[in-house]
Amino acid sequence: MTLGQVFISEVIGTGFLLLLGAGVVANVILPANKGFNAGWLTINFGWGLAVFAGVYAAWRSGAHLNPAVTFGLLANGAEEYAPGVEVSFSSTLVYLAGEMVGAFLGAVLAYLAYKKHFDEPADPAVKLGVFSTGPAIRSYGWNLVTEILGTFVLVYIILQFGNTPSELGPLAVALLVVGIGASLGGPTGYAINPARDLGPRIAHAILPIKGKGSSDWGYSWVPVVGPIIGGVLAGLLAAAVG
Amino acid sequence: MTLGQVFISEVIGTGFLLLLGAGVVANVILPANKGFNAGWLTINFGWGLAVFAGVYAAWRSGAHLNPAVTFGLLANGAEEYAPGVEVSFSSTLVYLAGEMVGAFLGAVLAYLAYKKHFDEPADPAVKLGVFSTGPAIRSYGWNLVTEILGTFVLVYIILQFGNTPSELGPLAVALLVVGIGASLGGPTGYAINPARDLGPRIAHAILPIKGKGSSDWGYSWVPVVGPIIGGVLAGLLAAAVG
Amino acid sequence: MTLGQVFISEVIGTGFLLLLGAGVVANVILPANKGFNAGWLTINFGWGLAVFAGVYAAWRSGAHLNPAVTFGLLANGAEEYAPGVEVSFSSTLVYLAGEMVGAFLGAVLAYLAYKKHFDEPADPAVKLGVFSTGPAIRSYGWNLVTEILGTFVLVYIILQFGNTPSELGPLAVALLVVGIGASLGGPTGYAINPARDLGPRIAHAILPIKGKGSSDWGYSWVPVVGPIIGGVLAGLLAAAVG
Amino acid sequence: MTLGQVFISEVIGTGFLLLLGAGVVANVILPANKGFNAGWLTINFGWGLAVFAGVYAAWRSGAHLNPAVTFGLLANGAEEYAPGVEVSFSSTLVYLAGEMVGAFLGAVLAYLAYKKHFDEPADPAVKLGVFSTGPAIRSYGWNLVTEILGTFVLVYIILQFGNTPSELGPLAVALLVVGIGASLGGPTGYAINPARDLGPRIAHAILPIKGKGSSDWGYSWVPVVGPIIGGVLAGLLAAAVG
Repeated sequence: MTLGQVFISEVIGTGFLLLLGAGVVANVILPANKGFNAGWLTINFGWGLAVFAGVYAAWRSGAHLNPAVTFGLLANGAEEYAPGVEVSFSSTLVYLAGEMVGAFLGAVLAYLAYKKHFDEPADPAVKLGVFSTGPAIRSYGWNLVTEILGTFVLVYIILQFGNTPSELGPLAVALLVVGIGASLGGPTGYAINPARDLGPRIAHAILPIKGKGSSDWGYSWVPVVGPIIGGVLAGLLAAAVG
Repeated sequence: MTLGQVFISEVIGTGFLLLLGAGVVANVILPANKGFNAGWLTINFGWGLAVFAGVYAAWRSGAHLNPAVTFGLLANGAEEYAPGVEVSFSSTLVYLAGEMVGAFLGAVLAYLAYKKHFDEPADPAVKLGVFSTGPAIRSYGWNLVTEILGTFVLVYIILQFGNTPSELGPLAVALLVVGIGASLGGPTGYAINPARDLGPRIAHAILPIKGKGSSDWGYSWVPVVGPIIGGVLAGLLAAAVG
Repeated sequence: MTLGQVFISEVIGTGFLLLLGAGVVANVILPANKGFNAGWLTINFGWGLAVFAGVYAAWRSGAHLNPAVTFGLLANGAEEYAPGVEVSFSSTLVYLAGEMVGAFLGAVLAYLAYKKHFDEPADPAVKLGVFSTGPAIRSYGWNLVTEILGTFVLVYIILQFGNTPSELGPLAVALLVVGIGASLGGPTGYAINPARDLGPRIAHAILPIKGKGSSDWGYSWVPVVGPIIGGVLAGLLAAAVG
Repeated sequence: MTLGQVFISEVIGTGFLLLLGAGVVANVILPANKGFNAGWLTINFGWGLAVFAGVYAAWRSGAHLNPAVTFGLLANGAEEYAPGVEVSFSSTLVYLAGEMVGAFLGAVLAYLAYKKHFDEPADPAVKLGVFSTGPAIRSYGWNLVTEILGTFVLVYIILQFGNTPSELGPLAVALLVVGIGASLGGPTGYAINPARDLGPRIAHAILPIKGKGSSDWGYSWVPVVGPIIGGVLAGLLAAAVG
């Protein structure tokens, strides 16, 4: 397939990821929603099944949906990013661009789906929380550690999926993301994906959201750098263990 | 298979869908139930597994269960609605009729399963809520947007299911519906299916429900028109992307 | 396989079903448990996964675990209850006996697992609730309707499982039971299985449970008769639809 | 494969198990977390999906991750612990050592992921609860019974997994662990794995956790002895039933 097709596929897949992923957070934390205060496990399943949908939508390009996966495959020594897509500088850029654009667009769609609820009064930090992650206790160093560990689990286990004869397909990564959210999402809200966090943060900065506050750019590098480190470490360890 | 068999199959499948789907809402919102106030995620799993059962029940006819799926396949350019069932004006009508009749009958069965709980005093809007969806914040335009987006996700991803080698069968669509409910159900209660909403609304209007109020016909076109638009857009985009 | 092997297999399978099924109820409703008040969805998943374990444990005999399934297969016109086990008067009796004995023993094991929590003070109706179901609103006629409908869904969908090419195995029936519990469990606590209710009720009557009250024999026929009617109706309809 | 490879595989797999398993408990019970008070079902899914990840990570060595599984296979009369790994005194020791070291290291990683939350004030018993299990009602005899029963279910059903043609792979054991937690976790917090409890207890004793209290060594033998007895009984019964 062409790099143009890769781009479109990753835009669509990451778009579904963010429409559903930002959507479940909006449902649970924005006022007046039917799912208001539905709890952490609802958010975990919502994000896991957002990945489920995104993987089906982007099957043509291998459904990276996440720069940490792209960099993890690179570090792992992969020769192809998907069947027929060689690893190269330009293909890497195309994946990263598709992931970022898709995440931005998906967040915009989630904003539209919840437009009337964004118009309600709420803490500006809550409105930002629909788009991007933030720390429960701000401590850039330890927040980074948590994001590295969460993404390490994500990419390392994805790299093992081919080794069992089960037929779970996209469900395997969906459940993995449910588990990482439940288990490692407490301190930072589990970005574990630079595009998932940065694309929507840009959308938050641009969109005319009623009563919005800061986009918290001071924190924004943590959910970008942490997942990249975690993904690369996972790729290297998986290659070393063989 | 004959169109008569298609009709029966879709009636049975959509009947199971509404018996279980209206049932979980009754359990969570009607007084004195063992599942009273069990929360949003319970409703999401209940509806997802209602689809799970409905798909098994209607496997013979391809288990549309939803006019948005029927119209989505039409817009996608499908030649058959199910193995051996050609797309035509009359077959389309048979699917739509079966879906509507099944949804009506399933809602009646759910009413019977929860009869003693419908007899308890409750807000008339709660009793209607077992049958049909309503907006958290009434705004026909934005409510329509939310229903379009939710159904777009449903139909677009269903159209991709054949492209992965996993063996999830009816579980895939069940999980998709769990995810759409968690992520996009907040503003309108996710009808994402015209028959699921209109058939039970007619049942609500007809049945001798104790203390019932308005069937809210003013809103009733939103969960019909929105899902049809969303399903058609999904069919067209999926055809364009190839 | 011999009928003796069928008996042992169904005893073991139904034993696991009740150990885990009565167990989850004990965890959620008996005082001082780590899962106390964990909610309805926890009970639904607990029972669904109890079926999951029971089906693996009784795979040799086709894992009926439930007289409503046995009678449903009979009504459906099955020639074998499991590969190599012909339908006959004596094989039917062996299934029913194994199911009852297993349900009794499993409830005794659940009692032992939660012994210290049964020793705590609690409403006698709560202690009975670990063993057997009871109505939220007592009305034998309508309670019967609810049990008929729930078991009808269970048996009808089980009879369709062979018709899709998915590879879910015991997970399919587990999820179906999660769904029936969420959707139709509100009024009666979803026995949907005569052995699951009657066997443990006998255990409740016999065991030296601290502070126990009535075993509520007045209601005990409802979760026996309702599921048998529902299972037979499902078998007949499934045979008629073909 | 060599015993050195077995050791590394079990260390990695059990490490993922504890990173995610201790992690979900930390998220739910340590103050200031986004998942604080998310409830028992969140813990059940967190641990189940921790097993899911651990099994993928340790697929090379058969993913025991648990001395009760190792002893259960031994009692069952297995000739190999994994394809190419013969059952012997030395291979048994290597599995046990890998499981213990992995559980210790995984708990250390979970501590790092939640470092800032461990620094917050909390009951010392809560901080221990992230690492190791403890009884809801202390009664060594009955606590032992509960751990025996829970592990018996785990190992007996795992030994049946090969007997159905479904393609669930690591999902089957993940769901089984979700179910055991929901159903039998109330009295003791379901260690059902000596390494899962003892390795992290050692980590708790060694790590410089702010405001930590006793490691409760008086109870520590229960979640070691109980699971070994339960696993061995399951192996013997499964061999007897054939």
